[in-house]
Amino acid sequence: MNEVYNFSAGPSCLPKAVLEKAQKDLLDYNASGMSVMEMSHRSSIYDEIHNQAAQDLKDLLGVSEDFDLLFLQGGGSSQFSMVPLNLLNPGEKAAYVVTGSWAKKAFKEAARFNPVELLASSEDTGFDHIPEINPSSCPDAKFTYVCTNNTIYGSRIVPQKLDPIETPLVADMSSNILSEVYDMTKFDLVYAGAQKNLGPAGVTLVLIKKGLKLAQREDLPTMLNYQTHLEKNSLYNTPPCFNIYICGLVAQWLKDQGGVPAMEERNKEKAKLLYEAIDNSQVFKNKIRPQDRSLMNVTFVTGDKDLDAKFIAGAKKKGLENLKGHRSTGGIRASIYNAMPLEGVKALVDYMKEFELENR
Amino acid sequence: MNEVYNFSAGPSCLPKAVLEKAQKDLLDYNASGMSVMEMSHRSSIYDEIHNQAAQDLKDLLGVSEDFDLLFLQGGGSSQFSMVPLNLLNPGEKAAYVVTGSWAKKAFKEAARFNPVELLASSEDTGFDHIPEINPSSCPDAKFTYVCTNNTIYGSRIVPQKLDPIETPLVADMSSNILSEVYDMTKFDLVYAGAQKNLGPAGVTLVLIKKGLKLAQREDLPTMLNYQTHLEKNSLYNTPPCFNIYICGLVAQWLKDQGGVPAMEERNKEKAKLLYEAIDNSQVFKNKIRPQDRSLMNVTFVTGDKDLDAKFIAGAKKKGLENLKGHRSTGGIRASIYNAMPLEGVKALVDYMKEFELENR
Repeated sequence: MNEVYNFSAGPSCLPKAVLEKAQKDLLDYNASGMSVMEMSHRSSIYDEIHNQAAQDLKDLLGVSEDFDLLFLQGGGSSQFSMVPLNLLNPGEKAAYVVTGSWAKKAFKEAARFNPVELLASSEDTGFDHIPEINPSSCPDAKFTYVCTNNTIYGSRIVPQKLDPIETPLVADMSSNILSEVYDMTKFDLVYAGAQKNLGPAGVTLVLIKKGLKLAQREDLPTMLNYQTHLEKNSLYNTPPCFNIYICGLVAQWLKDQGGVPAMEERNKEKAKLLYEAIDNSQVFKNKIRPQDRSLMNVTFVTGDKDLDAKFIAGAKKKGLENLKGHRSTGGIRASIYNAMPLEGVKALVDYMKEFELENR
Repeated sequence: MNEVYNFSAGPSCLPKAVLEKAQKDLLDYNASGMSVMEMSHRSSIYDEIHNQAAQDLKDLLGVSEDFDLLFLQGGGSSQFSMVPLNLLNPGEKAAYVVTGSWAKKAFKEAARFNPVELLASSEDTGFDHIPEINPSSCPDAKFTYVCTNNTIYGSRIVPQKLDPIETPLVADMSSNILSEVYDMTKFDLVYAGAQKNLGPAGVTLVLIKKGLKLAQREDLPTMLNYQTHLEKNSLYNTPPCFNIYICGLVAQWLKDQGGVPAMEERNKEKAKLLYEAIDNSQVFKNKIRPQDRSLMNVTFVTGDKDLDAKFIAGAKKKGLENLKGHRSTGGIRASIYNAMPLEGVKALVDYMKEFELENR
C-alpha cells in the first residue's frame, strides 16, 4: 500500500481504524451475512446502527437532552435553502454573518426567499478575519446565521465570539464540528455535511433544538420540511444507510480517542505546529488575522504562483496529497481535520523546511 | 461467514463480486493510498470514477447520445417534487398513472404545486393490475407520469403498454431499471433510487432527454433545480462519491454479465421459477393479474397471517432473509433484483415446497 497523508478539504481523510473496521465487515456485518449496504432500512439490525450513530454523535456534542438529530441528504448546499424555508414565514427577516464563500452562498440563497440582512462581513478585506458581530443592529431578525469555520479561507469563529448573539442562532459547522468544544446550547440549529469531520459525502447532520418553532409554508416540498424527518427519526424515506454507518464508526473512534476535548487538544497542537512553521518561515505566509485562524484548514502562500505549484507538486511526490488551495483563491491549503494524525502535520512541516532551504 | 440470500426490497443485495472489489480497495483505491471515501470530488482520480460510472450506465441503458445523466441525492421521494417543479410552470397540468403506493405519493406531492389529473388508477382493486392508459383523456398534460414497477404490490408496466403515450413521458424506474429492455427513447425523464438495482442508498439516477424544456420557477431552491446539476455534471456541490463509485462497480458487473438483455433473460427465468412454484402450490397465492406481474418483486400470501409469519420465520432459519411483505400490505415478498442469483430463487422454491408439505 502506498502510504500517504491526505490534506484534502473534503471529502477528506478518515481514521484508518474506521476504514479497517468497515473493510473487515464489508461483506458480512456482525455475522448477518450481509453488507450494511444491503440491509433494509426497516430492519432491526440497521435500526441499531442508525440509532447508535445518532446517540453517539449527540453524546459527543453534549446535546442528548436538548436536540433532535437528523441524518439528511443533499449536503450543506441543501441547507442553504432548508434553513430559511423552515425557520422563516414569508416576509420574516434573518441576519447573516458572512465570513467566507459558503456563508455568502447561504446568504444569497436565503435572499431568494426572504428579506435577509448582512449583519457583518469581511468580504471587503478578502475574508482575512472574523468581523465584529453586533446583533443589536438587526433587532427584528428571526435568527442569526454564522459559519463557524471557513474552509476556503482558513478562518474560524472562536466560541466566545458568539456570546453576544441572543436571537436563535443557526450555524454551519461543516468543517469544524467535533473538532473543538463549543457550548452547543448557544445554538438553535446546527448542520454539517459529513465529508470533513464526520464520514463520507452523502449525509448531512442537522441538529435542531427541541421546541424550536418551525415555519409553516404550504408550498414547501415534503422532503425539504424538517418536520417530515423529525417525525420519522430520519427514516421517512430510505436514508443513506452506509454513509450513516461510517459516521457511526467515526463517532465510536472519537469516543475512544477521548471525545471532543481530547480532539481539541490534539487539533490545537497540530495547528500550532503548522502555523509556527509558517510564521517562522521566510517563504510562507498565512493571511488570516492570528486570533481568527482556523484549526482545521491552514492556508498559506509563497507569494509566487509558480512557487506554490512547485511546492504542491513536490509535496505530492512525498505522499503529501491534496495541498492545492481552493480554485477560487489559489495558494496552498492543508486541511488537518480530526482524522489527520500529528505525524502527517510533522511530515508536512519537515517538507516545508526542506523546501525553504532549497527555494529561499 | 454466514451465507444468506437477501430478498430485501431495498436496500437490497449487491453482486458479491462488487462487494469483494470494494472491500479489496477500501483503504487503497488503485494504489492512491486513499479510500474512495477520502477523495476530493475535484480530484482527477475521482473524476474518472464519476465519469466512467455515468458513461457505463448510459451505455447499458442505450442512452449515451440522447440523455444527460445526473447523480442526485434525496432518493425517489425528492423526485416526487423535483419532477413537477422542474417540468411544469405554475398552472400547467400533468397526468399521472397511479399503479401503486409510490406513484400515488408522487401524484399527491405534484398536486401540492400544480393541477394534476389521474389518468389511470388501479387503486379500487387494491393495485392488483396495471390499468389501461388512454392518454387522449388528458390532452393538455405537459407530461405523463408512470412508475414502471410497483415494489410494494409486485406489478410492472410491460414496455409495450407505454406505446400509446405521446406526451413527454416521465418514469420512476427505481425498482426495475436495468432489469429488462425498455426502449428508453420513449421516455423524456427517468429516475431511479439506487438502492434496488444500482447500488447503495444515497444516490438517485436522473436521466433527462437532451433538449427537454425545463420550467422556469423563480422560487425553486437552487439544489432542486435540474439545471444546477446539468451545468456542473452533478458536481455543483459534493456528490455522494462512494455511493456513485459502487454504482459504477455494479455497472461494470452488469457489462460483464452481458448487459441488460442478458439480465432480462436471467430475470425472466428467476421470476418464472418462482411464479410457477406459487401457481402450482395449494398454499401460496399471488394476487397480481398474470400479464402485469413484476419480474423484480414477487408477492404472495397463504391467506392466513399466522402462516405467513411462520413461513417468514422458517425461511430466516434457512438463511432466506427479508421475505416479509411491506408493512402496508403484509404477506410475503421476494425481491429478486439483478444481483439475486438463480440459486437464491431455487433455495426459496425448495423451501416453499418443503413448507407446503408440512403445512398443507
